[in-house]
Amino acid sequence: MRIVSIREKTVSIASSIANAYIDFSRMTCSTVAVETDVIRDGKPVIGFGFHSNGRYGQGALMRERFIPRIMEAAPESLIDKERDNLDPFAIWNAMFRNEKPGGHGERSVAVGTIDMAVWDAVAKIEGKPLYRLLADRYRGGQADDKVFVYAAGGYYYPGKDHARLQDEMRGYLDMGYSVVKMKIGAAPLKEDLARIEAVIEVLGGDGSRLAVDANGRFDLKTAIEYAEALRAYNLFWYEEAGDPLDYALQAELTGHYDPPMATGENIFSHQDARNLLLYGGMRPEKDWVQFDCALSYGLVEYMRTLDVMKELGWSTRRVIPHGGHQMSLNIAAGLHLGGNESYPGVFQPFGGFADGITVRDGYVGLPSAPGIGIEQKSALYAVMRELL
Amino acid sequence: MRIVSIREKTVSIASSIANAYIDFSRMTCSTVAVETDVIRDGKPVIGFGFHSNGRYGQGALMRERFIPRIMEAAPESLIDKERDNLDPFAIWNAMFRNEKPGGHGERSVAVGTIDMAVWDAVAKIEGKPLYRLLADRYRGGQADDKVFVYAAGGYYYPGKDHARLQDEMRGYLDMGYSVVKMKIGAAPLKEDLARIEAVIEVLGGDGSRLAVDANGRFDLKTAIEYAEALRAYNLFWYEEAGDPLDYALQAELTGHYDPPMATGENIFSHQDARNLLLYGGMRPEKDWVQFDCALSYGLVEYMRTLDVMKELGWSTRRVIPHGGHQMSLNIAAGLHLGGNESYPGVFQPFGGFADGITVRDGYVGLPSAPGIGIEQKSALYAVMRELL
Repeated sequence: MRIVSIREKTVSIASSIANAYIDFSRMTCSTVAVETDVIRDGKPVIGFGFHSNGRYGQGALMRERFIPRIMEAAPESLIDKERDNLDPFAIWNAMFRNEKPGGHGERSVAVGTIDMAVWDAVAKIEGKPLYRLLADRYRGGQADDKVFVYAAGGYYYPGKDHARLQDEMRGYLDMGYSVVKMKIGAAPLKEDLARIEAVIEVLGGDGSRLAVDANGRFDLKTAIEYAEALRAYNLFWYEEAGDPLDYALQAELTGHYDPPMATGENIFSHQDARNLLLYGGMRPEKDWVQFDCALSYGLVEYMRTLDVMKELGWSTRRVIPHGGHQMSLNIAAGLHLGGNESYPGVFQPFGGFADGITVRDGYVGLPSAPGIGIEQKSALYAVMRELL
Repeated sequence: MRIVSIREKTVSIASSIANAYIDFSRMTCSTVAVETDVIRDGKPVIGFGFHSNGRYGQGALMRERFIPRIMEAAPESLIDKERDNLDPFAIWNAMFRNEKPGGHGERSVAVGTIDMAVWDAVAKIEGKPLYRLLADRYRGGQADDKVFVYAAGGYYYPGKDHARLQDEMRGYLDMGYSVVKMKIGAAPLKEDLARIEAVIEVLGGDGSRLAVDANGRFDLKTAIEYAEALRAYNLFWYEEAGDPLDYALQAELTGHYDPPMATGENIFSHQDARNLLLYGGMRPEKDWVQFDCALSYGLVEYMRTLDVMKELGWSTRRVIPHGGHQMSLNIAAGLHLGGNESYPGVFQPFGGFADGITVRDGYVGLPSAPGIGIEQKSALYAVMRELL
């Protein structure tokens, strides 16, 4: 059993949306195919991977460093002999050979994307959906059959007024979502509050069904001004108020904001995750962390991050990953997370779930086919097929 | 005045050396040339940049994101009108447009390398060595005319015994260095202690002239075992014992080791630097930080890091940068740092100083030509000329 080839391609996910920090007019994403010599249903097993939005495609790093290291490793060193399958941990170690510690960015996306494709192949070789494989291997078989999802939207874009924002949010409720998220921080506070109130109106006046996301834009003073203005709405969460690495700001902000807060999508290693939990003042009984496997060295590293959480007294139920895709959905269902992001309509075809899988009362199910579910989302599979 | 072109190339700096974490058998480095339309001495001013060893060339990121953003910016938006020169801060902001916060690695090297070439051009346009320009702009004209340097070597490589290690260190003393550094952590403690004692013998029995570097290899238990064994030698410093982001380990280690410690070469942003100083238990009166401009978004970001140090009560004299090259040397002399690393004989031609500049009693001077001094190091200039 061996990996025959690893191919990658950079595709555009450009759109006219913006958050408080960046616009997505030139955003790209890497796709990866890991082809094996294992035959299932008469065809070689191929695992597919991609990564979450926001960090640009990383094909060059894959071609220069990570793919060659896997292809040059002795094939038998990458095998899980006990399970007669590929060994994602051994493959990860091969990728990380001769990489210095620290400095976790870009390469964390390159490694995370290949790692996703490896796990897709592993699940296909074992003939199970990935979430089932994860539950069987690591949680004594206990998987969730549905996962909480919220609809992340409410971006800024040219010409978007309150009526269009409300229409967007109504659309999410009609799709079956119960909690929605909107961007803040790219407009003055007063205007953001008017936007928030417009959305809460659509939510029947219930602020606890609305999350807001500042995308790391605020300094401490602004973060506190927003905290004081937001407090009364009792929001679902107040996300990434300050720089993602400004643990002191996050800890200080806790003293000014009692309702739930969230952060973590720009934390790309288990070492950084540990620092956030040690120094960021996050509250395990009510706050949320949003670590994103595809941006942060993949599922192999994600399990280390979940171990760090356990060490520090955090339930895995407090994780709702960034990314809005099926990989995070599988991890959520298989490893007992708290839910998953969802971006109805944007970052397509990478965002979203398998065709025909609908959201009901804020929860989504998973397909039963082996792997992550890429072949069960036809628009996504069409893009992946271009790798072959 | 405008930037006419930015070119980059990846060159090999492969060698047979290894530290406790990686080997350098496939190490690469990016070179950059920023060509302007400014004429000095009858020729267009061209700034050159490269980066410190250990993090691989980043040409693809430059080509895909950072060079296009500079070249697409309105040329007048990149000019320092008051000084009639390029504006490195405006150029930095153009590079960082549409980059999300957090995740500081790889791109920090790409940006840092271009930033170096920009500052080389700026100093050439102003007709001054970079250290003089920095002192004039930011320190009321006060520059150091010589900089403390130590010789970093003592790597592990096949067939290297104690006698060869001693010969290597004797060579550094003969070159004029007074303090030397060696790697630890890739051999068992007992063997490392024997290596250390062999080197201290060459240093006339004075352990305070020897620094040791574990390259982030140790867990807390091993870091403490080494601390207890090393304490009696009263070393110059004990460097990067644990993972560079494991601030809790570093803080705990402080309680077990009274002599100076050092870390920071794998800290790539001012946000990460702040966290190290806030949470790592580093002692401003005796410990050293080793932030490396070329790996961490360049001099523009480095000044933010120096501001963070000031805020937190640290003297700039406690910084001795990683990297062993003329860019860090200029920053050290111009911005009042504590010294600079030096790698006699390795990482050539990027490491080391201008031709004919010798080390005397542990200090090195700087050339008086405009810029960083790349043209004054013929082997380095030969590599840079390949860009043209």
